[in-house]
Amino acid sequence: MNIQTLKGFRDFLGAEARKRQYVMNTLKRVFESYGFEPLETPALEYEEILTGKYGEEGDKLMYRFEDNGKRRVALRYDQTVPTARFVAQYQNELPMPFKRYQMQPVWRAENTQKGRYREFLQCDADIVGPDSTLADAEILQTIIAAYKALGFSNFSVLINDRSNFEGLSTDAVIAIDKLKKIGEDGVCQEMVDKGIASSKEDAYNVLRSITEKKPTQRLQEITELLQKEGITHPVYSPTLARGLDYYTGLIFEIETEEYPVGSLAGGGRYNNLIGMFAGKQLPAVGFAVGFDRTIEAMEALQLFPAEVMQASAKVLVTVFSKELERKSVELSSRLRSNNISTELWLDSDSKMEKQLKYADAKGISFVAILGPEEVAQDLVTIKNLKARTQQQLPLEKVIEMLLQ
Amino acid sequence: MNIQTLKGFRDFLGAEARKRQYVMNTLKRVFESYGFEPLETPALEYEEILTGKYGEEGDKLMYRFEDNGKRRVALRYDQTVPTARFVAQYQNELPMPFKRYQMQPVWRAENTQKGRYREFLQCDADIVGPDSTLADAEILQTIIAAYKALGFSNFSVLINDRSNFEGLSTDAVIAIDKLKKIGEDGVCQEMVDKGIASSKEDAYNVLRSITEKKPTQRLQEITELLQKEGITHPVYSPTLARGLDYYTGLIFEIETEEYPVGSLAGGGRYNNLIGMFAGKQLPAVGFAVGFDRTIEAMEALQLFPAEVMQASAKVLVTVFSKELERKSVELSSRLRSNNISTELWLDSDSKMEKQLKYADAKGISFVAILGPEEVAQDLVTIKNLKARTQQQLPLEKVIEMLLQ
Repeated sequence: MNIQTLKGFRDFLGAEARKRQYVMNTLKRVFESYGFEPLETPALEYEEILTGKYGEEGDKLMYRFEDNGKRRVALRYDQTVPTARFVAQYQNELPMPFKRYQMQPVWRAENTQKGRYREFLQCDADIVGPDSTLADAEILQTIIAAYKALGFSNFSVLINDRSNFEGLSTDAVIAIDKLKKIGEDGVCQEMVDKGIASSKEDAYNVLRSITEKKPTQRLQEITELLQKEGITHPVYSPTLARGLDYYTGLIFEIETEEYPVGSLAGGGRYNNLIGMFAGKQLPAVGFAVGFDRTIEAMEALQLFPAEVMQASAKVLVTVFSKELERKSVELSSRLRSNNISTELWLDSDSKMEKQLKYADAKGISFVAILGPEEVAQDLVTIKNLKARTQQQLPLEKVIEMLLQ
Repeated sequence: MNIQTLKGFRDFLGAEARKRQYVMNTLKRVFESYGFEPLETPALEYEEILTGKYGEEGDKLMYRFEDNGKRRVALRYDQTVPTARFVAQYQNELPMPFKRYQMQPVWRAENTQKGRYREFLQCDADIVGPDSTLADAEILQTIIAAYKALGFSNFSVLINDRSNFEGLSTDAVIAIDKLKKIGEDGVCQEMVDKGIASSKEDAYNVLRSITEKKPTQRLQEITELLQKEGITHPVYSPTLARGLDYYTGLIFEIETEEYPVGSLAGGGRYNNLIGMFAGKQLPAVGFAVGFDRTIEAMEALQLFPAEVMQASAKVLVTVFSKELERKSVELSSRLRSNNISTELWLDSDSKMEKQLKYADAKGISFVAILGPEEVAQDLVTIKNLKARTQQQLPLEKVIEMLLQ
């Protein structure tokens, strides 16, 4: 039997899981402080809800099957289409504007060669209803506050308006979007190759007509609103296109030069998508956090607090012998009642060496020992495994030390 | 098109989602304080990992299909089998004992007539490795601490030892397990009907032989360990069987008479299951929280803190007019920088009445109004929608009030 995870799927244990929880909890706190409500939708939807919404590629990469009741079903592919379904289903009772955040896994049968995952977490926040500069500015404020809360101090927000590309074909926009990756010459070559421009000179002219565009009135208003709030982040970036076709106004990306692997997050205004099931236009603006890439960047920049990287327990209370096990149980209870995360060794017949090795392997910082000597003197031997020091202390001093 | 969720699947918005997060966060805190590490496993596994592990019924209710790469895959059906797969896959690097908790959705194509869900969250904590009374007592302490942390003050922990049923057929154990539901007479009738006992008198004798069993030595030791810790909860319950076949020692259930709908959580020792993929015996003891039922009970007993039941935002800052919108943006920023969750109205052309109705519909407690009069006097009108009061206050007093 194949005792392994499927290709493109991952297990997360301990610090790996705790990093994910830390990022989710930080984002939740920020999103809720801006009045976004949490939304959870099912992993499975009727297939017809999802198909045809993500282009041919999407339908190909979607996990779809027939369930036991002969229904055609599909696994969540993103969070925007389920939200559109939700808005249509509850449109009569849902207060508008509708501000929600959603953090759930999605499944895509991507080519794993590219280092992509087939199961990954999406974190979105969106405002459905108002088509206003206020809403655009609010979404930018939210994502900026989120990255600040995660500890990023040095990041840029590139902004643009999709109306800058009016009159250009989708292929031209796709080519221009690659400017950073392949340079001016690459973009122009692609335009010629795809028959968008008749010559390189023509292509340069098209590209120049974009790079020389002044920010739209709306972008100026958004920037002004943010500047009045002391936010100087937004950088006008006329060639920023973002791949997806469905944006209708503001578009933006977050990136940091300290970890230059493309955008950490991105979003924009998309006024025609959310209303598709409700049968009416429902303007929307929102963003998606690139969850895995953000975690990668935080690892590289050492933005995770120390406690995230350590074991759940701060201290391992060892068991010296069967006779003394109750002393160790008592000590554990005392530490826990003082809000100290404590793991108790659970086998009275183990050698001390084995217990110490375990604490070390698991990354537990402290080890407490209660042998006959300690019990006789009413002391606890406490070892700091990182500093390689050890002390004999009365209980109240141990608590004090572990609470530091 | 069918604009709805699949039968047995649910959406959760706002307070409904926040209740779930609250329970998960509370459990996480307790589990980590006992040294359990978080584990996440993929939603999809190779089908052969999951099939044959849950009996015929399990294989029938499992969501299984062929993926795009022609692999047979299945959706997570519980968290114990994926954990067993994980332990086998990483057995060479995993420190033992292995203490993990896991909180992820599972999928079962149950008959929804019974009010069961096809997607529901499981919350497990398990200790793999030691086969000791210490470990048994630790698992009981953890679940008791968890229910206390959730706010339950009045609950029982029924305990028993599966060895009490030695020599009885599975059918007999299943019948006895129904004692609470169908009474002595019902149990005995079932034993006769199933040919387990030749007569009602015989059946009564079998049942009595169980009810009169004294607690095993091991149960006595566990109870004693807990009592020394001031825990008087465990109630010996010789007919408690728990459905699943795989328990090998201690079994237990949590219930409360204040919400008598069966057990809120349950678990026990199962020494033969976790090692099945690793090809060796790996003793284990653990429990599963009945997540939906626990939430139901907490609703009924009003155990959720007020903030869980309210909107994300504590206050809606309204927008009086286009000219004054910047004043409202400024106020929002000031409130947020004082850690007050604030929703800003995002359309400068809306009537005040519409904005007030929205706050009310969403359950936002306070509304702030900044009209020309307020701006001239440097005051904010603040309405308490619950108390139906309103005051004009300077900013610092508003902050003080909202922080209470």
